[in-house]
Amino acid sequence: MHVTIENAQAAIAAAIAKARETDTFMCIAIVDSGADLKAFHRMDDAWVGSIDIAIKKAKTAVFFGMPTGEIGKLSQPGGSLYGIEHSNGGLITFPGGLPIVDEDGVMVGAIGVSGSSVENDHAVATAGAQAIGSTDLPSHPWRT
Amino acid sequence: MHVTIENAQAAIAAAIAKARETDTFMCIAIVDSGADLKAFHRMDDAWVGSIDIAIKKAKTAVFFGMPTGEIGKLSQPGGSLYGIEHSNGGLITFPGGLPIVDEDGVMVGAIGVSGSSVENDHAVATAGAQAIGSTDLPSHPWRT
Amino acid sequence: MHVTIENAQAAIAAAIAKARETDTFMCIAIVDSGADLKAFHRMDDAWVGSIDIAIKKAKTAVFFGMPTGEIGKLSQPGGSLYGIEHSNGGLITFPGGLPIVDEDGVMVGAIGVSGSSVENDHAVATAGAQAIGSTDLPSHPWRT
Amino acid sequence: MHVTIENAQAAIAAAIAKARETDTFMCIAIVDSGADLKAFHRMDDAWVGSIDIAIKKAKTAVFFGMPTGEIGKLSQPGGSLYGIEHSNGGLITFPGGLPIVDEDGVMVGAIGVSGSSVENDHAVATAGAQAIGSTDLPSHPWRT
Repeated sequence: MHVTIENAQAAIAAAIAKARETDTFMCIAIVDSGADLKAFHRMDDAWVGSIDIAIKKAKTAVFFGMPTGEIGKLSQPGGSLYGIEHSNGGLITFPGGLPIVDEDGVMVGAIGVSGSSVENDHAVATAGAQAIGSTDLPSHPWRT
Repeated sequence: MHVTIENAQAAIAAAIAKARETDTFMCIAIVDSGADLKAFHRMDDAWVGSIDIAIKKAKTAVFFGMPTGEIGKLSQPGGSLYGIEHSNGGLITFPGGLPIVDEDGVMVGAIGVSGSSVENDHAVATAGAQAIGSTDLPSHPWRT
Repeated sequence: MHVTIENAQAAIAAAIAKARETDTFMCIAIVDSGADLKAFHRMDDAWVGSIDIAIKKAKTAVFFGMPTGEIGKLSQPGGSLYGIEHSNGGLITFPGGLPIVDEDGVMVGAIGVSGSSVENDHAVATAGAQAIGSTDLPSHPWRT
Repeated sequence: MHVTIENAQAAIAAAIAKARETDTFMCIAIVDSGADLKAFHRMDDAWVGSIDIAIKKAKTAVFFGMPTGEIGKLSQPGGSLYGIEHSNGGLITFPGGLPIVDEDGVMVGAIGVSGSSVENDHAVATAGAQAIGSTDLPSHPWRT
């Protein structure tokens, strides 16, 4: 199952509301469960460099069905996944990307947010994802 | 000047309305005058292959300040711009991409649409662009 | 829905049988409905250059939900989609790629075959796809 | 010499058996001694992000005739091969990629596995490679 555009828009709206609350200027990307872009929104004054980061965060979260920051913990120098960012056309492995999981435990897509500190990016991504599902690790089969 | 997110959303809304009128399923991309993605919307059931085409059409229209189809007339075998599609990370030179020009003749961005025949793509792009500006060739300085 | 590995293997087995029948040496790729690689098989003596072509044919067929050769008819010089091959990281638009559609009319993936004439490539792809579904144009929603 | 498709399939079958034993969901890639893809298998429920990682692990192992993890020891910050991952279209230098060496000490290809911890990836790759050869460092000439 793939996220619908209606849900993608609801997630973006919730993310924008959170961004305004924290006085930040964000790029927000939603991808479906095939890691294909569904919707994108760049707030006025958001960094141009955040466009690609937001999209790559969303793709990274779908690629492995987990928050981007979890991968980043393992990809540090000396870590077991050091250098994983070189795969898949470039991954972003710091916080701000989250899978979006429906009520059946199936991952329908992901959200990626970039534009401020990773704490703010993560908070805005969480607000967006939770508007339409959960960010828990998906069950198997995690994607249908 | 760059298109605002408010205007980008208005253009997308007008494009969606036109797409529904023609019973088509479109990917719609808005870029600013730097050819950087501002907003993107994939209608449910739009082709996945149209994501990249819509974005590349919008970029192509900003890169040269003209409708993508105009470039395509010159890039045919034997034409003066034959092979131009190999530049800039890949251009799309058939119709569906249009510059968006403000009331002062300045190009503020572009719209790219993909998902149906090039005639439908062009009609939907036109509806989107005209909701917030014109698609006339920009004057010099065509970008500020 | 995505093609299962069991079905992907059945499609490849049927394609191989057809390739042997025609005394050809093929690369055979199966992608899911997100255009992500599911299975790949290079017969001994197949061209190395066919690896990428087979994969790109399968991706192209999923990207637009139609046989690759249909796109190629429109992408000739002077055609409405001239130059579309420059999108999506490179498309292949001659025959040999086919969508795989299940009994509900939903596209679950695609097969791409390369290694001989386009007629043989198409025949082998057809044999593979028909072992597990149809190659008719999918209904809307063509992908879930 | 290049791995035959018969041997590639035997290696994949052994890898799958090991993956099932460890209750993991793997992507398994086999490349020949030219680093060209020979066969690929994505188990149901394997991560989509593991497709590219499995293929890159196999290529990396052939590129240098050694286990990917050995390269990773040298590519850490301050190490002699720091940043080598930027070459060859992207390397993966953590465990899970192994050369496949025949009885004459000639490298005929490699296996790359991704989908779980690097320990599990390595164990599954080892099971696959050992079904058809050894994973010892090849002698010179290590490739014919």
